Amino acid sequence: MVGRTLATRLVALGHRVTMGSRRAGNEAAAAWAAGAGEAAAEGSFADAAARGDLVVNATAGTASVAALVSAGADNLAGKVVVDVANPLDVSAGLPPTLSVCNTDSLGEQIQRRFPSARVVKTLNTVNCEVMVDPSLVPGSHTMFVAGNDAPAKADVRALLESFGWPADDIVDLGDIAGARGMEMYLPLWLRFWQATGTGHLNVKLARRA
Amino acid sequence: MVGRTLATRLVALGHRVTMGSRRAGNEAAAAWAAGAGEAAAEGSFADAAARGDLVVNATAGTASVAALVSAGADNLAGKVVVDVANPLDVSAGLPPTLSVCNTDSLGEQIQRRFPSARVVKTLNTVNCEVMVDPSLVPGSHTMFVAGNDAPAKADVRALLESFGWPADDIVDLGDIAGARGMEMYLPLWLRFWQATGTGHLNVKLARRA
Repeated sequence: MVGRTLATRLVALGHRVTMGSRRAGNEAAAAWAAGAGEAAAEGSFADAAARGDLVVNATAGTASVAALVSAGADNLAGKVVVDVANPLDVSAGLPPTLSVCNTDSLGEQIQRRFPSARVVKTLNTVNCEVMVDPSLVPGSHTMFVAGNDAPAKADVRALLESFGWPADDIVDLGDIAGARGMEMYLPLWLRFWQATGTGHLNVKLARRA
Repeated sequence: MVGRTLATRLVALGHRVTMGSRRAGNEAAAAWAAGAGEAAAEGSFADAAARGDLVVNATAGTASVAALVSAGADNLAGKVVVDVANPLDVSAGLPPTLSVCNTDSLGEQIQRRFPSARVVKTLNTVNCEVMVDPSLVPGSHTMFVAGNDAPAKADVRALLESFGWPADDIVDLGDIAGARGMEMYLPLWLRFWQATGTGHLNVKLARRA
């Protein structure tokens, strides 16, 4: 769902998108590609990573490293890898726990496993509808980016702005270890969701000027 | 520092406060009590808990359960215990990690250890200056409460309002398991602090009306 929402928005913005799956010909991916116009295609994770100038990891967090291994380190080398996943583990029921946290994060795991990739963690702190249309949440509210590569973060900022995130609402949390805080925020997000009854929510960073 | 800041504000608001320490006669506590007027006193954790109608846990999170054991379960029974602590572990250096998280929280540990106490987690998501004076952060921003006992949460809401938190900015995250999200937010808070250079910061919950 996250991948489809992002891919649809990217196509609408004029990008060419290949939706990757474990195997080329995945039914849901093929259905999406068939309905999304000429700029949309589908293929294996490796096909998608090889074709893309920029790679989005929108897989389940607990499967993300395996999916990226399947995509191929050579296909990720030098590229911006936008990691929007959360390592939510529902194997023991609800509420989900995190399969990695506290001393590490999924964003860091991906960066370590693929040192030539330029990993930027972002968007994982909102639901996919808000990711691509921040106006669904009234007022100004904050999106975070974290990563080791400043030009990669600048590219991702530009992408976020094209989704509708105002430049002033995008906060740089520093290196990829900032992913730890962004992922550990999820349990609070889940409680917000329960308390408010809407997934169209976010937080705004308020601070002394 | 957190305890002194809260205690000073509580005295200013007309409450009588006993600052508890591991042993009665703690130098810093005695100095505070001597300077804080007739409504201020100091004593052991047990003295403080026995005297108080309401107990505030403002100890280091990694020492909180031990401090409350020292305070005495009988002295906590039936009372509102406001837990503002964070289980930050700096024993392996910075950034701190959490000594408990993901599948449990300090708030839950305290509630389980003292089942007759009416534990309310709150205030741990801001620094102590903001706790007692939310106007230090411009605009509206959000404070959370979590706990199993609704009347206890109502008492804590009233206390928060007396500190200056507008009623509309206090969000109930449900039972004490909500402490998990509130404590796991700390790594994000620490990154905010690094990114903004001020501890006078908080988040505002923004959502579809």
